[in-house]
Amino acid sequence: MEQKISNSKIRTEVFEELCDTIGRENALDNIEERICYSFDATKEKAVPDLVVRPHTTEHVSTIVSIANKYGIPICPRGAGTGLSGGAVPIKGGIVLDLKNMDKIVEINAKDLTVTVEPGVVTKDLQDEVAKIRLFYPPEPGSAGFSTIGGNVAECTGGMTGIKYGVTRDYVLALEIVLPDGSVINTGRKTLRSVAGYDLTRFFVGSEGTLGVFTKITLKLLPLPEKIGTIISYFKNIDNALNATDSILIKSHFLPRSLEFVDKTGIDAVRGFTKEDIPEEAKALLLIDVDGNEKNVTNDISKIEVICKENSALKTSIAKVSARPCQPGEAVRTGRSDVDDERNALWDIRRSISPSLFKIASMKFNDDFCVPRSRVREVLKKVYELSKTYSIQVAAFGHIGEGHIHLNVIYDNGKKIDLSVHKLVSQILKEVVSIGGTITSEHGVGDAKSEFVGLELSPHEIEIMKELKKMFDPKGIMNPGKIFA
Amino acid sequence: MEQKISNSKIRTEVFEELCDTIGRENALDNIEERICYSFDATKEKAVPDLVVRPHTTEHVSTIVSIANKYGIPICPRGAGTGLSGGAVPIKGGIVLDLKNMDKIVEINAKDLTVTVEPGVVTKDLQDEVAKIRLFYPPEPGSAGFSTIGGNVAECTGGMTGIKYGVTRDYVLALEIVLPDGSVINTGRKTLRSVAGYDLTRFFVGSEGTLGVFTKITLKLLPLPEKIGTIISYFKNIDNALNATDSILIKSHFLPRSLEFVDKTGIDAVRGFTKEDIPEEAKALLLIDVDGNEKNVTNDISKIEVICKENSALKTSIAKVSARPCQPGEAVRTGRSDVDDERNALWDIRRSISPSLFKIASMKFNDDFCVPRSRVREVLKKVYELSKTYSIQVAAFGHIGEGHIHLNVIYDNGKKIDLSVHKLVSQILKEVVSIGGTITSEHGVGDAKSEFVGLELSPHEIEIMKELKKMFDPKGIMNPGKIFA
Repeated sequence: MEQKISNSKIRTEVFEELCDTIGRENALDNIEERICYSFDATKEKAVPDLVVRPHTTEHVSTIVSIANKYGIPICPRGAGTGLSGGAVPIKGGIVLDLKNMDKIVEINAKDLTVTVEPGVVTKDLQDEVAKIRLFYPPEPGSAGFSTIGGNVAECTGGMTGIKYGVTRDYVLALEIVLPDGSVINTGRKTLRSVAGYDLTRFFVGSEGTLGVFTKITLKLLPLPEKIGTIISYFKNIDNALNATDSILIKSHFLPRSLEFVDKTGIDAVRGFTKEDIPEEAKALLLIDVDGNEKNVTNDISKIEVICKENSALKTSIAKVSARPCQPGEAVRTGRSDVDDERNALWDIRRSISPSLFKIASMKFNDDFCVPRSRVREVLKKVYELSKTYSIQVAAFGHIGEGHIHLNVIYDNGKKIDLSVHKLVSQILKEVVSIGGTITSEHGVGDAKSEFVGLELSPHEIEIMKELKKMFDPKGIMNPGKIFA
Repeated sequence: MEQKISNSKIRTEVFEELCDTIGRENALDNIEERICYSFDATKEKAVPDLVVRPHTTEHVSTIVSIANKYGIPICPRGAGTGLSGGAVPIKGGIVLDLKNMDKIVEINAKDLTVTVEPGVVTKDLQDEVAKIRLFYPPEPGSAGFSTIGGNVAECTGGMTGIKYGVTRDYVLALEIVLPDGSVINTGRKTLRSVAGYDLTRFFVGSEGTLGVFTKITLKLLPLPEKIGTIISYFKNIDNALNATDSILIKSHFLPRSLEFVDKTGIDAVRGFTKEDIPEEAKALLLIDVDGNEKNVTNDISKIEVICKENSALKTSIAKVSARPCQPGEAVRTGRSDVDDERNALWDIRRSISPSLFKIASMKFNDDFCVPRSRVREVLKKVYELSKTYSIQVAAFGHIGEGHIHLNVIYDNGKKIDLSVHKLVSQILKEVVSIGGTITSEHGVGDAKSEFVGLELSPHEIEIMKELKKMFDPKGIMNPGKIFA
């Protein structure tokens, strides 16, 4: 990337140019505010030269054009809840805060589509369409805070992926500001379209490195009538994994969610929830099914039988709920007064990540996926390596899809940082060697850019870099991400 | 495209070079055989210089390398059932017949994945995985004949899209021979992966213009236990469309299939099926729901009530079936002796396209999609235009998604050909003007390349052409398709 202008000039001349075009109230240059935009959920830090807060596509286009003119890095940002450093401006320059572009532009109930600006919070969208009994399924753990723009940029998945797929499967059309400031519209606001190359899906998951989404059209589904929830505790991981195979493969259920938590995760949340968790529990499965009430009740009782057949220590079933899942609600509000039973069970899953901080002050949130049949093997290896390095790990995730959120927990210190890096590095090598992927929903960002070569061939990386160059010849869009 | 070699040299020198590397038995140069590869389901015709029939990825790589060396057009072909001319070698050169690459490489039941070669017939794959109670949902009308490679190249959708999405949503990983003969592997054989740009989905729907798929890994689902089927006849289109809104929007059902047929379609199939179709029927809905038996029975009876509330003339319900849909079976075998009731109802839908030839000898199979709320409007316009031009049309399709297969029926003749072209052209203009797409599952091919500019902006087309150039600088891969 060739930056034609000094950092001090960015903070003076470019700042003035930005203020002139998008208004002084939408540009921030003071250090206190810039620091607020220097990190995301990875705890990584890099202070930007400027922060801008566009309200319209025209604003974004103007800002990007100015950045392009001077070759200044530009880093799009949603809620900053990302776990791969996607929103951290590691090369300085301008942070593009999209939180003011938070309008639900139109809900077309009959069309089963909705068009939103990128700054809409995922759960707000879900709640809004649920009022008219429509359903936007993708549900990352961060849905209560994260934005649709960020979800699309990372192609997040979340809790409902096993049945409903991931963000990519719901994006129909995009309005995108390209790195030269021009605006294109990809896809179509129809439930199907195949005219020309699939630019829409090509941009999904591109981590802010190819352009800025300014409008996003999503597919909606009819809202399932009811949700049934069951939690089941096991005395070992094998029993839990056998139960998942039995649910999906032998009994051909397709649950809405099929979540796993290991012993470290379970122990961390003890006391955080109302649930009485058996002392000897070393694994749990949290399962949602949805559909009409009769069917849900019927499925849940059959799944309970399967769990018991696989030596479950205990199972708890929540009253069938009419309410869609409330991601992040427990975290945000402390507790919810509706659907208490269902929320009580989900609180366990939702509280893991924050609860792990009681073990140590630092946490590396890894995220990988292996073929379902290799989960057992990869977890065994993970625990062995954790022992070798004497670093604690907690594993949980969307186990129905072979997905693991591996949290590596440690206290700060140079020596331990190095060991954590070695541990993560060895785990990811293991993951890739058995056919897995280094990231299944957090994205590469800069947190994992050094590991991309484990998974992608040099030829594939070369093609991706050529594509990046084609769209962004000056390399201004979120530089330093994906490719080390 | 710069072809460095004369056509006569292709048929002599290049033919010998191909025979030397892939074996004489895998290369065809005689005119009788070449003519067999000169057309697809569009009835368009162009005789290739040579036909090659690779058995391995190495074969494909060698053939493509040779084509690349001489700048010879190469046209990949599955079963030739495409409806946009994708498999017609309109610029001559080499047809790459992939039907010999028809192995199901591995079914990983526990992983919920399957890896196939491109020449596997869609229904064969569906039947094979159904034996172990797994499910590959995408089901184009041609599933009994068409290949997975072709399905992926066109990103076909089919009958189950409303509930299960389209081909794109099931493609996890691809082995691709690029236009320079090199082989890349995109994606991962895991149920999720987001490492790097999404080359996999970028290649899906690229209509053979960017490379040749030699292995395809697909996501599978647990097979739904049962399927329930109901057909309902209406005295006008409005009633039928009101019923679809009531099913999806008011009653939030998510059926497996939600198909529509208009009067011309209905009249064409009278006598082809056992069903007694009411004389005054001007529209029908054919609806599948799947799930466990109780649920299916329950849903079907509720849907029957909805149809009756919308003044259905008659409804017929098939016995709940354990068998997955048998696309193409009725056409291929005349009749099926199992699941007779369900097949009898589906025969109606499946027989439309062939039955229309009893009206006239020629048929243009258009395929478009509009926002669901605009279906009424677009059909009204279609019938008006049909009257204006005195050309008969039949409309049917995946109405749950706002999708229409518009069949324009006519007898040959220069003057009428011109009118058909004008009619189609005006209809597509109308479709695009109300937010629709010119193709939702057939692809652009060359049949619709002249209409791409209606839907895509010059800037978007320019980007797509740049992408094409990046991957295929010599323009050898299926030239003349997508872009006029």
